[in-house]
Amino acid sequence: MTQTSNLNSNVTNESEEREDYFEYFFDKPGSEPGTLCIEEDAVPSQLILTNYDEKQVAKKVNISPNELPHYITSADSLWLDIQGLGTEKTLKQIGEIFNFHPLLLEDIVNVPQRPKVEYYDDQLVIIFNLVTSNPEEDGFSFEQISLILGENYLLTFQEGHNKDYFDFIRTRLEKDKGKIRSLGVDYLTYLLLDVMIDSFFPVLEEYSERIEKLEDEAIISPNRKTLPKIYKLRRELLALRRAIWPQQSVITTLMRSSSNFMGSKVEVYLRDCYDHIIQLLDIIESYRELSSSLMDVYLSSISNQTNEIMKILTIISSIFVPLTFIVGIYGMNFEYMPELSTKWGYFICLGVLAMIGFSSLFFFWKRGWLKRFDVVEEQIE
Amino acid sequence: MTQTSNLNSNVTNESEEREDYFEYFFDKPGSEPGTLCIEEDAVPSQLILTNYDEKQVAKKVNISPNELPHYITSADSLWLDIQGLGTEKTLKQIGEIFNFHPLLLEDIVNVPQRPKVEYYDDQLVIIFNLVTSNPEEDGFSFEQISLILGENYLLTFQEGHNKDYFDFIRTRLEKDKGKIRSLGVDYLTYLLLDVMIDSFFPVLEEYSERIEKLEDEAIISPNRKTLPKIYKLRRELLALRRAIWPQQSVITTLMRSSSNFMGSKVEVYLRDCYDHIIQLLDIIESYRELSSSLMDVYLSSISNQTNEIMKILTIISSIFVPLTFIVGIYGMNFEYMPELSTKWGYFICLGVLAMIGFSSLFFFWKRGWLKRFDVVEEQIE
Amino acid sequence: MTQTSNLNSNVTNESEEREDYFEYFFDKPGSEPGTLCIEEDAVPSQLILTNYDEKQVAKKVNISPNELPHYITSADSLWLDIQGLGTEKTLKQIGEIFNFHPLLLEDIVNVPQRPKVEYYDDQLVIIFNLVTSNPEEDGFSFEQISLILGENYLLTFQEGHNKDYFDFIRTRLEKDKGKIRSLGVDYLTYLLLDVMIDSFFPVLEEYSERIEKLEDEAIISPNRKTLPKIYKLRRELLALRRAIWPQQSVITTLMRSSSNFMGSKVEVYLRDCYDHIIQLLDIIESYRELSSSLMDVYLSSISNQTNEIMKILTIISSIFVPLTFIVGIYGMNFEYMPELSTKWGYFICLGVLAMIGFSSLFFFWKRGWLKRFDVVEEQIE
Amino acid sequence: MTQTSNLNSNVTNESEEREDYFEYFFDKPGSEPGTLCIEEDAVPSQLILTNYDEKQVAKKVNISPNELPHYITSADSLWLDIQGLGTEKTLKQIGEIFNFHPLLLEDIVNVPQRPKVEYYDDQLVIIFNLVTSNPEEDGFSFEQISLILGENYLLTFQEGHNKDYFDFIRTRLEKDKGKIRSLGVDYLTYLLLDVMIDSFFPVLEEYSERIEKLEDEAIISPNRKTLPKIYKLRRELLALRRAIWPQQSVITTLMRSSSNFMGSKVEVYLRDCYDHIIQLLDIIESYRELSSSLMDVYLSSISNQTNEIMKILTIISSIFVPLTFIVGIYGMNFEYMPELSTKWGYFICLGVLAMIGFSSLFFFWKRGWLKRFDVVEEQIE
Amino acid sequence: MTQTSNLNSNVTNESEEREDYFEYFFDKPGSEPGTLCIEEDAVPSQLILTNYDEKQVAKKVNISPNELPHYITSADSLWLDIQGLGTEKTLKQIGEIFNFHPLLLEDIVNVPQRPKVEYYDDQLVIIFNLVTSNPEEDGFSFEQISLILGENYLLTFQEGHNKDYFDFIRTRLEKDKGKIRSLGVDYLTYLLLDVMIDSFFPVLEEYSERIEKLEDEAIISPNRKTLPKIYKLRRELLALRRAIWPQQSVITTLMRSSSNFMGSKVEVYLRDCYDHIIQLLDIIESYRELSSSLMDVYLSSISNQTNEIMKILTIISSIFVPLTFIVGIYGMNFEYMPELSTKWGYFICLGVLAMIGFSSLFFFWKRGWLKRFDVVEEQIE
Repeated sequence: MTQTSNLNSNVTNESEEREDYFEYFFDKPGSEPGTLCIEEDAVPSQLILTNYDEKQVAKKVNISPNELPHYITSADSLWLDIQGLGTEKTLKQIGEIFNFHPLLLEDIVNVPQRPKVEYYDDQLVIIFNLVTSNPEEDGFSFEQISLILGENYLLTFQEGHNKDYFDFIRTRLEKDKGKIRSLGVDYLTYLLLDVMIDSFFPVLEEYSERIEKLEDEAIISPNRKTLPKIYKLRRELLALRRAIWPQQSVITTLMRSSSNFMGSKVEVYLRDCYDHIIQLLDIIESYRELSSSLMDVYLSSISNQTNEIMKILTIISSIFVPLTFIVGIYGMNFEYMPELSTKWGYFICLGVLAMIGFSSLFFFWKRGWLKRFDVVEEQIE
Repeated sequence: MTQTSNLNSNVTNESEEREDYFEYFFDKPGSEPGTLCIEEDAVPSQLILTNYDEKQVAKKVNISPNELPHYITSADSLWLDIQGLGTEKTLKQIGEIFNFHPLLLEDIVNVPQRPKVEYYDDQLVIIFNLVTSNPEEDGFSFEQISLILGENYLLTFQEGHNKDYFDFIRTRLEKDKGKIRSLGVDYLTYLLLDVMIDSFFPVLEEYSERIEKLEDEAIISPNRKTLPKIYKLRRELLALRRAIWPQQSVITTLMRSSSNFMGSKVEVYLRDCYDHIIQLLDIIESYRELSSSLMDVYLSSISNQTNEIMKILTIISSIFVPLTFIVGIYGMNFEYMPELSTKWGYFICLGVLAMIGFSSLFFFWKRGWLKRFDVVEEQIE
Repeated sequence: MTQTSNLNSNVTNESEEREDYFEYFFDKPGSEPGTLCIEEDAVPSQLILTNYDEKQVAKKVNISPNELPHYITSADSLWLDIQGLGTEKTLKQIGEIFNFHPLLLEDIVNVPQRPKVEYYDDQLVIIFNLVTSNPEEDGFSFEQISLILGENYLLTFQEGHNKDYFDFIRTRLEKDKGKIRSLGVDYLTYLLLDVMIDSFFPVLEEYSERIEKLEDEAIISPNRKTLPKIYKLRRELLALRRAIWPQQSVITTLMRSSSNFMGSKVEVYLRDCYDHIIQLLDIIESYRELSSSLMDVYLSSISNQTNEIMKILTIISSIFVPLTFIVGIYGMNFEYMPELSTKWGYFICLGVLAMIGFSSLFFFWKRGWLKRFDVVEEQIE
Repeated sequence: MTQTSNLNSNVTNESEEREDYFEYFFDKPGSEPGTLCIEEDAVPSQLILTNYDEKQVAKKVNISPNELPHYITSADSLWLDIQGLGTEKTLKQIGEIFNFHPLLLEDIVNVPQRPKVEYYDDQLVIIFNLVTSNPEEDGFSFEQISLILGENYLLTFQEGHNKDYFDFIRTRLEKDKGKIRSLGVDYLTYLLLDVMIDSFFPVLEEYSERIEKLEDEAIISPNRKTLPKIYKLRRELLALRRAIWPQQSVITTLMRSSSNFMGSKVEVYLRDCYDHIIQLLDIIESYRELSSSLMDVYLSSISNQTNEIMKILTIISSIFVPLTFIVGIYGMNFEYMPELSTKWGYFICLGVLAMIGFSSLFFFWKRGWLKRFDVVEEQIE
Repeated sequence: MTQTSNLNSNVTNESEEREDYFEYFFDKPGSEPGTLCIEEDAVPSQLILTNYDEKQVAKKVNISPNELPHYITSADSLWLDIQGLGTEKTLKQIGEIFNFHPLLLEDIVNVPQRPKVEYYDDQLVIIFNLVTSNPEEDGFSFEQISLILGENYLLTFQEGHNKDYFDFIRTRLEKDKGKIRSLGVDYLTYLLLDVMIDSFFPVLEEYSERIEKLEDEAIISPNRKTLPKIYKLRRELLALRRAIWPQQSVITTLMRSSSNFMGSKVEVYLRDCYDHIIQLLDIIESYRELSSSLMDVYLSSISNQTNEIMKILTIISSIFVPLTFIVGIYGMNFEYMPELSTKWGYFICLGVLAMIGFSSLFFFWKRGWLKRFDVVEEQIE
């Protein structure tokens, strides 16, 4: 089950948008190392076996673990794709058939783990992440894929079984007779790693659009909802970087160590993976710096808004408060106030009031407050 | 005695929530290196001795140091767990029995020390921290555990004796006949280190919840109490990172140095410890970046609040100040004011006032101040 | 086609100023590695072939790929400049003639790629960027140039064909008989790299001017448009750094690796390239720090503006609000108010009002508000 | 003379709290390397000579440099402690006796120098800092101690002679017959380095208290004086870090280089020094991060204060400005205003005014402004 | 010509204080590598030749390049100091006599270059900067000095000829018969490098004073002019760091590479240079952190100012707005208002107004606004 669905189940209304990208799996203090944590009601995992060599491909869907030993031959390349983590029994059965180290199953089952590569005596284990964007809302989900590479076999454990991410690779295996079949399971491993790395690009593409939207929002019409959006953006970019960073060191380790698992012919292709992952980190770093600037931009915009509000208040008060004072004077009840009894006193008074009012307006117009205020209005509409 | 209780004793009312996570023990200037600082009224330490080999386990509780030499045999593995630092005499007695280096007891007693690993001629010394969360309030306490690993014995010095953190390990030793007994004291050392590292995960889990709460608070209802909470969060994450960082280098040192204390079979398990500690640092770094963003979010929220307050003031003033000016005009006592004597003058005046008031309202409504103001209200309720 | 024009086509009115400097090309998830992505309506690429040795130069413009094999001789140095990526057929034809690795054409065609250098068996491939400033608006455009260096030939693939950046090099080849002809294609490679690096300097020169203008704007007359300008500046400097950084590691790799592609005589010239690129990074880092300070300066300026606005409001209110209260007193209709019936009461009242008003003014003048206010006025005008 | 007293002499009233922790000594441009800068009126330095071996200790106080050669024997360990830099003549005399390199005296005299370690042919020179806290005011003073370690002699040059920091070491030499005497001058060097490193701990302890006080002040009652305090704190922590950082590399250099000056027996003790100095840097880094957060906290607190002030203003204005408008209406002098002549008009008007006033109050109470306002009041008192 | 004067010529009134410390020289795109850029109206450069060995010194001023070959002998050490870059012809003549690499003259002439060291076959080239503070205004000017060190000769190219920075070295050469003459041109090189490094110290001393002044200004009397000053400070510190950083790597390179240009006797002196340059970087880093804190301090001070202004406004409004409302009530023209006809009504009303006014004042005094306000006043005066 993917990390997302797992979380949605026990999260209430308030924080339903917030996914916990920052947790790793950890043993409950006191539990024995090597304990598998499998959910009770797990759907049985689906096994897809593909035997292939240069001449032929044989695909078997939905076989049971018991049948596995029949299909394993040392002659051709074998790819066993296990979709869904299923029951402990099945996993242990597979573990026995392929001779797993005691700690290995733990890494596969107790998701999420930090991406890593480990060399055992006769197996190379790669823990990797695939990312999918959530279609209905912003954000993304990780799915852990564990690859166990043996001499002539490749096992892939997919965390969930709602989507078959590697189906098109199988199709290509069946149709294409070229390089993909002749180069063995290490080249297949490269292909799968490449698929998982490339899954990050469309997700980042979406972030590029979100950043552009937020730029417009923060500069032109900053409001209370802008802030949580910027914060959410930073949070998710942080999570993405944290996911990709260890994968880069996985690829680097694979490139550097000249093991007998990854042939030298595949090495030049790994360089391609490395290029892509460096590009990913590059983009994320840029996005993080931009999002950090966005927070500053938002703060400045808010300060600007305060200024505009203050200007309105100041203009209104500065014009009318003195005028009110003057009309107050002539509202006084002194017995002897000579101005009151003149015939045109009232109209002269009104004239003076208008003059004072307009000269205040002129003062503010000369300071540019009235003009600037209009400009802003334009920008917003 | 743990660091917390030690501090609570001499701290007054004001700052009782603030624990001093940042102090290390230091000698008073002028004191001789190697001086032990033990509190006068220390409770005697409790010794639990466990002898075990593949076939049998013998546990002796509450033995006195004098009896120790009787139980030490070179035949089987020996684990002496000293709970509470007790009196200087007991410690020196143990030091003599196990032939400690002069500076070693100082590291054990003068807590807190920075986690470290030191190689002596016939002993490997590990200073490590275990963390427990405080149940009644936020925060956590460190407890220093010192491990002295000899050829076939392991000594563990626990700072406090209020809780037996390693009890379930002893239980497993007694019940389980498998790996734990056959692999010797180096595997036991790994198990204890793993327990101590894993003790950080539940504490971090609590921080994840606190950060989410603070996010809501900072964005939706920022108030004066939010600020100290964010600051306290940053302070504690800083303390956690500072505690874990040296432990990571302890594990790295143990992995790299191929000593005769840690067998090669245990090395693959240490990689597991290393993975966990890297995950811890990963999480803490993410939390620190989030908490740093939270401060920005809080500042922006406060600025937003200022804006909202200013808007209310400006709306009220902009509507009523000009109106008050107009009613002031007709409060003047000029003898000749033609409007005053017209029959409907008063009602026309009221009509004009209403018109001006509503057009002001319309102006603000068009600017979105009234609407936006409502939205915020909704968000808060 | 350059990155800019490519983007302008599918970008609407709002964000037309914003260029996407942060995207790299990526395969659509599921596509096979090595797929070429060429636009349907691509203009055929123009091929310019230059054969030269110490004695003579032969330049052929607009030759078709079919003719290429006739001109290739091992005797002299050959430079084939392909302007515009053109059709897949042409590219594959060239790829076959020069024996390209399967993944190489992908790097050339699927622009933009991250600058890099790759060593194949008999070819050295350099992906590099040239930058041109946009004349009509701020900003710049990248153009990817791919160099394939063989034993005695150099292929250059230019992304666009709207401008011939290397024309003057060809002219020098024809006119100059000295070093440029005798030193072979590796020296020619150095010359082209130097041209591409030097293309960044005039662009940075423009940024120097923009920063100075923004400094004046942020300090003296900060307004709402200053903020987006600073943000845009940061964004573009970030993009420039991201473009130059990998190019520096390209030059470093070329300097360190003593291959048989780059002769030792050219190495001393590469040091010059390296100096220039370090200078570029130096300047950009300085500009980034300055732009980061500019944001602070802008924020402070806005706060200063708020203060000035507040001061006006406070001065006006502090003077007239108390006065209005006093005139209100004498507007009360109590029957027995002795002051009202005195002859000079009105004039004494006016005198008191004036006194209070001027003493308020004096208070603010002594605080320096009036003076400071004038100073600011001066600065702005 | 210590750095502090040196500065206090030529500093006036305004900035008397500010000590210049950031200057190093530098030659006036144009002066010859190796020039000694000694104050004219320097007090003669006091020489304390201690000869010791395992069996006996001989201490001579206040000897003159002329007598020195008599006491120097190759048989036992010799420690010459020079307190106060004294006159150039004395120093040169000592330099000749112990055969100093030309540049060495410059490092000793021209204080402050950056802490460093230098290996000459037959001498090891360590420049180190001791720190003392100023009792009457905040802050601290550095005192440079230069150690010259020869085969069987140790020379220590103390910058000032107002306090004998090493007196208790001499006392221990006389009383203790154990390790300190038998291990030679390299162990003595370790002891002195340890004293100087440990001198930083009590100073840092004071900073811990100052930070706690500032936390309370910044959160609960921020005022104009808080800001300079935080700034001063940052300034001093910066100075402390700058002082300790090079000392850490001194200790590292001493540990790594297996010279014949520091015996292998002393190396295990140097590890202890290293631990302490890493702890110091750890604590300072934490304090610096906390002080950096404090500035943010202060800024937020000030913004909070602004909000509270604004709330009072808004509440007062929002209640009374509309009421004043209404009473203004009935102050108008229109001849026909029917409400005026009704008998209970006045009391109905008062009732309406009260109603409006209380509903405004209710509005603010519901928004939580009144309540929150009280809470704050409580917090402050 | 120095960088400053060069810039002053083409800079107008507005930005005359701003010097462009961030530009390096770059070739116009399209120009051939190795082109010299010399101003048309350059003053001829002045050549000062100094031949010296242990026994004698011969100085020739104002010799022409044609005479040079006569003076060059392999017997003694030769120092040729070229002041002012002069004409291309002279430089090329010198280049031929001393057998320069083609790219070398470019580095000398096309100023400013980044400081660097380059090893050619028989020459060591050092590009270095000397700094002088501008006496009439803040800021400083760089002057590029290029040193070409051959087996027994040293060439120094000074950018300008308005000041002879090395005159006192020549004087010492003539007077002093000791180390300076006997150690050869590599020791002379060290002396010149030391002069250039030490030229930074007095400039930094001035910055220390500027920072202190700005601290006072930012904390006690922040105004609009403070901000540009802090920004200018940051800008110039950035420029200084950028100038010193590459010089540090020059010294490091000289220390590490054991070439036959710098003898081993001079190496110990270079360590001294290295110490000084590390001290410079140390100081600059501290100043940069302080200046960064200063910006925060300024922002906080401005916020504090806003608060003080707001407090005045709030106090005035809170006192008089309610009072004005009350007097407005009794200004209403209702026919039946019983209070109006009582005899002492007016005086009772005045009494109530005074009571309300004073209780408001008491409220603010208890909040500490009045007191705090006075304190601030004191601080400012």
